[in-house]
Amino acid sequence: MSKYVFFAPNPTSIGFLNEEESFHAFRVLRLRNGDAIRILDGVGGLYEAVIDSIDSKKTSFVKLQLIEKQDKPAYQIHLYVAPTKQMERMEWMVEKCCEFGIHTIGFFVSKNSERKEMKLNRLEKIAIAALKQSKNLFLPKIQTLAPLKQVMDSIQIGSKDQALFAHISDPPFPTLGKQIELNKSYHLFIGPEGDFSGEETNMFFGKNYIPFSLGKAILRTETACIATTHAIHLAHE
Amino acid sequence: MSKYVFFAPNPTSIGFLNEEESFHAFRVLRLRNGDAIRILDGVGGLYEAVIDSIDSKKTSFVKLQLIEKQDKPAYQIHLYVAPTKQMERMEWMVEKCCEFGIHTIGFFVSKNSERKEMKLNRLEKIAIAALKQSKNLFLPKIQTLAPLKQVMDSIQIGSKDQALFAHISDPPFPTLGKQIELNKSYHLFIGPEGDFSGEETNMFFGKNYIPFSLGKAILRTETACIATTHAIHLAHE
Repeated sequence: MSKYVFFAPNPTSIGFLNEEESFHAFRVLRLRNGDAIRILDGVGGLYEAVIDSIDSKKTSFVKLQLIEKQDKPAYQIHLYVAPTKQMERMEWMVEKCCEFGIHTIGFFVSKNSERKEMKLNRLEKIAIAALKQSKNLFLPKIQTLAPLKQVMDSIQIGSKDQALFAHISDPPFPTLGKQIELNKSYHLFIGPEGDFSGEETNMFFGKNYIPFSLGKAILRTETACIATTHAIHLAHE
Repeated sequence: MSKYVFFAPNPTSIGFLNEEESFHAFRVLRLRNGDAIRILDGVGGLYEAVIDSIDSKKTSFVKLQLIEKQDKPAYQIHLYVAPTKQMERMEWMVEKCCEFGIHTIGFFVSKNSERKEMKLNRLEKIAIAALKQSKNLFLPKIQTLAPLKQVMDSIQIGSKDQALFAHISDPPFPTLGKQIELNKSYHLFIGPEGDFSGEETNMFFGKNYIPFSLGKAILRTETACIATTHAIHLAHE
């Protein structure tokens, strides 16, 4: 089996790699016509194929064969976070959450937000790289920064969902592991340094979101995201 | 209570901050004589004190008062890792593990190691910064890089200890959460990309180390360290 893994959405209908993947295949890995590659579609499929033509801008492939297909997992993790001032911290967060496996990473602006705009392009590349590295088959949807209320309004909470938010209080709320029901779609909100404002907290309570504690230590925002994602996976082990 | 937290080992016998902390206090925070500060001793103590004299090289303090004292925790995490090529990844690992709380971070050279030497100075600074940020009271011991066998020989496994190593196998070994006994001193080994060699694996089995799986996804070395540390804490929640 080829050790060269690429990402291509809808490989069954679009028989080529995009410019970035082509550049990597041609210039970095020096692949040529006839070389075998593997392709991730980001929605549970892993394929093998053979390069038919290649240059640094476009690579077409043939003989596409599905070699692994994962069903949608029994539980899904949708994480929403108030981005940190340093984008590097969000980049690490995306990489680590993708390694553990995650389905949505969204960003919101909150009262205490340190960052009110951001570009997703680099985060999407990091997510794809982490997918290839981790052998996970689902690429998360990375959602653009929007006001907290707008993000909350876009989420429908049904019987298969659980909506929670990290919140500091004294005495602390129970931790995530003590509150989640298994095999749900989890919608998890992580606030900025300085936590959610009183008004925001009331908005969560008003929509029956469950508050959870991140434990005794004060975690940085990106660490809280990683811990939350990891805790959901551990609970399902 | 002062919001300015500094690190000073043995503050009861040494009444001053070191050069680095003094520079930060004087130049960055612009603290002056008479200002109140908090001091972490890294072994469970949090103090308040008042600056008596300050410049960018040395700060002396008086009126030292213990305001919090944590006992040695019921469980301890000693993590040993084959360092990655990129030091940045080890720096993030140290920061995140210190946020969660950890007692030793050691480094070893293994057959598939990507890095055979490293400097600890910067890692120690990161650990101190993470301690201040997280409000944890124990500073981990950061141990210099040494051959795997030497590191293993330095560890005494008694009735209060559990020694484990991350190992990939097919079928996979049980995960950490399924194998640890609570309230022990855990000695945990995380191998390099490419895992431990056959000879190294035999060395672990020969000393009755317990192999554990990190789950389905292939985690990067630093992610494996973060996940392992976090999993131990979650098991004790």
